[in-house]
Amino acid sequence: MLVEKILAGDIRAAARLMRLADDRDPSARAQLAALFPHTGRAHIVGITGNPGAGKSTLVDMLVKRFRSTGRTVGVVAIDPSSPFTGGAILGDRIRMQRHAADPGVFIRSLATRGHLGGLSRSTSDVVTVLDAMGFDMVLIETVGVGQDEVDIVRNAHTSVVVLVPGLGDEIQIMKAGLLEVADVFAVNKADRPGAERVIAELETIQQITVSQAELRHHRGTDNNPWPVQQAPETTARIPILKTVAPRNEGIAELAEAIDRHGDSIRQSGAWERRERVRLADIIHALLRERMAAEFESRLAELERTSGISRRLVSRKTSPYDVAEKLLASLFPPSV
Amino acid sequence: MLVEKILAGDIRAAARLMRLADDRDPSARAQLAALFPHTGRAHIVGITGNPGAGKSTLVDMLVKRFRSTGRTVGVVAIDPSSPFTGGAILGDRIRMQRHAADPGVFIRSLATRGHLGGLSRSTSDVVTVLDAMGFDMVLIETVGVGQDEVDIVRNAHTSVVVLVPGLGDEIQIMKAGLLEVADVFAVNKADRPGAERVIAELETIQQITVSQAELRHHRGTDNNPWPVQQAPETTARIPILKTVAPRNEGIAELAEAIDRHGDSIRQSGAWERRERVRLADIIHALLRERMAAEFESRLAELERTSGISRRLVSRKTSPYDVAEKLLASLFPPSV
Repeated sequence: MLVEKILAGDIRAAARLMRLADDRDPSARAQLAALFPHTGRAHIVGITGNPGAGKSTLVDMLVKRFRSTGRTVGVVAIDPSSPFTGGAILGDRIRMQRHAADPGVFIRSLATRGHLGGLSRSTSDVVTVLDAMGFDMVLIETVGVGQDEVDIVRNAHTSVVVLVPGLGDEIQIMKAGLLEVADVFAVNKADRPGAERVIAELETIQQITVSQAELRHHRGTDNNPWPVQQAPETTARIPILKTVAPRNEGIAELAEAIDRHGDSIRQSGAWERRERVRLADIIHALLRERMAAEFESRLAELERTSGISRRLVSRKTSPYDVAEKLLASLFPPSV
Repeated sequence: MLVEKILAGDIRAAARLMRLADDRDPSARAQLAALFPHTGRAHIVGITGNPGAGKSTLVDMLVKRFRSTGRTVGVVAIDPSSPFTGGAILGDRIRMQRHAADPGVFIRSLATRGHLGGLSRSTSDVVTVLDAMGFDMVLIETVGVGQDEVDIVRNAHTSVVVLVPGLGDEIQIMKAGLLEVADVFAVNKADRPGAERVIAELETIQQITVSQAELRHHRGTDNNPWPVQQAPETTARIPILKTVAPRNEGIAELAEAIDRHGDSIRQSGAWERRERVRLADIIHALLRERMAAEFESRLAELERTSGISRRLVSRKTSPYDVAEKLLASLFPPSV
């Protein structure tokens, strides 16, 4: 059984289950469910920012830092990739080489796929495996574009937003909602001109950010069936760390800020609230995916039996009527 | 009835139905279905590109150009906005002022919302209304980030990808899959240094782009229940137009390239194939949204009856098991 091997720390078994899960192999579900009771210990850290922010190097340095404090680290690297070719631009192998000799590090790359929550689901599956294996830290690295990726970072216990001087894109990051999910800011490439300006901007918008974080936790998120009514978990300032990743500058401080945030939310009860939202999101991703497949097959059936696409194009029926009909077949109106 | 008024060209009735649809008012569906038989004439043009590419000005100039050739133009402007505040950053009113005196122009802004296909659905609803009203051209302007927005542009009859010199982000656009959906390239701000380099890069990747477009049309898209088996619709070069929007340079040529593409796909039959995919996507967006609401309420029910979120956090059950249970209640396994 893969499950016992994985719980015994078998890396190859873990990689095999991740692959089965990513391929949506029917055997994966039961095994992930069997691993799930062994999860809940890992500190899940999302790390996001614009392309070019130097996230990969930053993550590599964080891995080294956490290892030097005796902790094991799993990494999920989400690579932006073509929706058509489906391939990850950075492969596992290139990145693995740097930590190949270290059994305390496991790196898995995932390519983005479609828009049906597939990425979010694949990420959760890998996190489940890594957590069950006993990795102390799980770092999820993603480019901060797209709602799927924002959700992934939002569902981490601790979200690190990486900014760099000179991109001039701060306002875009704010628009994309990334600032609103930040628990820690890292201003990377801080030896470049403009670093102080980025920090000043972040300090200016702290007020907005904090009040939006309150809003978020009060009203819950899109996928949160149990919005939290308690007081907001923090109105404290969000720490801003300066880093120069290739020179290892500021990395220890960033790692400490991540640890402090983890400790703080464990104490305040926010850890558990975040877990609830995260686990609800896993359920939603599973449901969305399965439903999409179900509707796909029902539409294909309608195409076979009544040439629905031609009837739509010729305006003999409307998408609104077809959707209604399919929904009625699933949810008969109560009498 | 709103429908008759809209078909008679009543702008206020149209705005009212768009608002009802955007608010997911139950009365909207039947009215959109009633309008649908009157659609199918408008040429739907998606215009996308990075933030800062000057899309708004470009769209305004295109509107003027199409108007000068006697055509009416509807615009759907999708504004990146906070997922929490929900507000559009540019309002309808600011943009409307420029064309306020012209009844041949209708502009509607939409804010991004969630990740359940809500944006895609809202866009389709507005397009249905504009098409039914008889607008000759419907321009959909969106920032090219996020799968939702890529889908919206992909579902247009003609997709214009706007690039600018100096952003150095060509590779990022390619990663995001935008190049693969391009029918026309506009290199805007073409008076800036580097314009020729952007054009040279685009010419270099034409080969890749064309072969990926073939792939796309052969295997269908995520949401396409009826993948097309015919020969790819074109292996011709994708036109690259230089524009300087504020000076109206290259706008007439861009408008012509859009018209030529529309004529070409009408003749080749690709127009109808694109309509099928677009209409299937509307059905999917409607289904996704309704399913999400359904699961939301079932999860909330589980929370009330069995405190499911605590049982998840304490690992007494797993997201995989909960999802399975909910799905089984919808789709009882066949005996």
